[in-house]
Amino acid sequence: MNKILDICGKSNIMEPIRSFEQLTSHLQSLNKKPRIAVVCAKDANTEYAISRALGEGIAEFIMLGDATDLESFTSLRRYPHSVQILHIVDPDEAAREAVRMVRDGEADILMKGIINTDNLLHAILDKETGLLPKGKILTHLAVMQIPTYNKLLFFSDAAVIPRPTLQQRIEMIWYAIRVCRQFGIEQPRIALIHCTEKVSAKFPHSLDYVNIVELAEAGEFGDVIIDGPLDVSTACEQASGQIKGIASPINGQADVLIFPNIESGNAFYKSVSLFAGAEMAALLQGPTNPVVLPSRSDSGLSKYYSIAMACLTCKECL
Amino acid sequence: MNKILDICGKSNIMEPIRSFEQLTSHLQSLNKKPRIAVVCAKDANTEYAISRALGEGIAEFIMLGDATDLESFTSLRRYPHSVQILHIVDPDEAAREAVRMVRDGEADILMKGIINTDNLLHAILDKETGLLPKGKILTHLAVMQIPTYNKLLFFSDAAVIPRPTLQQRIEMIWYAIRVCRQFGIEQPRIALIHCTEKVSAKFPHSLDYVNIVELAEAGEFGDVIIDGPLDVSTACEQASGQIKGIASPINGQADVLIFPNIESGNAFYKSVSLFAGAEMAALLQGPTNPVVLPSRSDSGLSKYYSIAMACLTCKECL
Repeated sequence: MNKILDICGKSNIMEPIRSFEQLTSHLQSLNKKPRIAVVCAKDANTEYAISRALGEGIAEFIMLGDATDLESFTSLRRYPHSVQILHIVDPDEAAREAVRMVRDGEADILMKGIINTDNLLHAILDKETGLLPKGKILTHLAVMQIPTYNKLLFFSDAAVIPRPTLQQRIEMIWYAIRVCRQFGIEQPRIALIHCTEKVSAKFPHSLDYVNIVELAEAGEFGDVIIDGPLDVSTACEQASGQIKGIASPINGQADVLIFPNIESGNAFYKSVSLFAGAEMAALLQGPTNPVVLPSRSDSGLSKYYSIAMACLTCKECL
Repeated sequence: MNKILDICGKSNIMEPIRSFEQLTSHLQSLNKKPRIAVVCAKDANTEYAISRALGEGIAEFIMLGDATDLESFTSLRRYPHSVQILHIVDPDEAAREAVRMVRDGEADILMKGIINTDNLLHAILDKETGLLPKGKILTHLAVMQIPTYNKLLFFSDAAVIPRPTLQQRIEMIWYAIRVCRQFGIEQPRIALIHCTEKVSAKFPHSLDYVNIVELAEAGEFGDVIIDGPLDVSTACEQASGQIKGIASPINGQADVLIFPNIESGNAFYKSVSLFAGAEMAALLQGPTNPVVLPSRSDSGLSKYYSIAMACLTCKECL
């Protein structure tokens, strides 16, 4: 169990969060409301997500964008003290101003509405005025609630780094460990994914995995279990490893899947969402503050869960 | 509708096969029993698959391997006229003999039991005595029945070619088209999978896709719909394309997914099997005759469906 400080400053034992429902309850128990700067909200799914977060009482919002786009967001009018509107017509200007607010401590979390991802990233990555500290790697960490899996499943990277280097893979693992701890997972089980359990020079990432497992065994990552190469079924199903005669310390109970490349991470994310009815939350990793960067096609629920994940991992909440 | 010749030689209209149940019924209506040479069967899942195929009356079997391994296969004793046992202790010798039987027309289909895949492939790929015609590309085509999708979904390549070249992708598409036609799919919809819908020089396969779509539009592949790059959700869900404003002729109704690399194909296969309860069949493509090459961890049902797929695509059945 992780020790955390509760709102009275007392040391507390945290139960691991195993579902998005538990995530909301946990945030409500913290009784904190981080301020989320939302750039160019204009779609019904974003409205649903924000309205839900307001209803659950887990966040406050600053909406930056064309105020006429927000006129239809009638559900937000019920929370006049928790929603502030800044009328900025130009999307790039709205992005820059939202980033500035986060930098200057006027907001805690950044969230994308309907603006081109590249345009928002441009503001986030600006060396002078952005949110990514020098030398930090920008990557994507998502977490899925899959009806047929018994806990939340984190994975990286389905959206940002096409072919991670060894150093980038190590950073991805560090980010995942940090977030797992914030979810109360004492000893995260991290599976390094490949299409087989064999190491081969034909697949350079499988050689990276050998390095990473050695580092983990030497204690480099602290109290975690890291193993690979494993395929998705050996990582997430006990019977699969038994049939193949593979004894992995992950034991079919992975908390985190690290994918070898963006195509495999994305295929996993899209197919499990679509065919297994999974709901998802995701955040950029690397910036000083949580950044919620949903896809246009993400459901309102997924956008809400991403807000909740941001609230949990936000400095303001911890 | 595809025209096929029925057993009386009359021209017949074939309804598309949309489930594995329909596949079995269709095979039964053909009233043909291809002979399947099985190398080193010794596990319960293989026994189940063979016993089921015998019970459905869709095939006959020649079992090559250590006869003592087969002693526990009591379920096969019910079909003495449809099962022949060839006692060969050495697995490599059994593999070579099974391949010879297929080459010489004494068997129609080759199937792997519990023998190292590389050892069986060695016999299949032998330039003098194997089953792969010179210049033919060896690849893997699988088909899934996903409870949450309204038809069978074919995909390639989750198991053989790590990073296909343009020429290999074109061959993969040709194999998929041929098999789709055998399943009665008049105008197969083939989605070229990527993590986004954007073409970018950063992802060479997305440039291959542009070439392939041009070839398809020029009529090179006949009456098919080919589009890409698309992600899995845009390929298989209408709403997803609509939200993103993407007008693809696939229209969220893909019959075939061509994956950019083996990691993404394998992540799709393993995660949809595990989390969406999908059943699967798969065959090698390229050899003169169907080759069933299941994973050790495939279920008995998946092994049976692979046998059924082999029977459908076998020259003997057509």
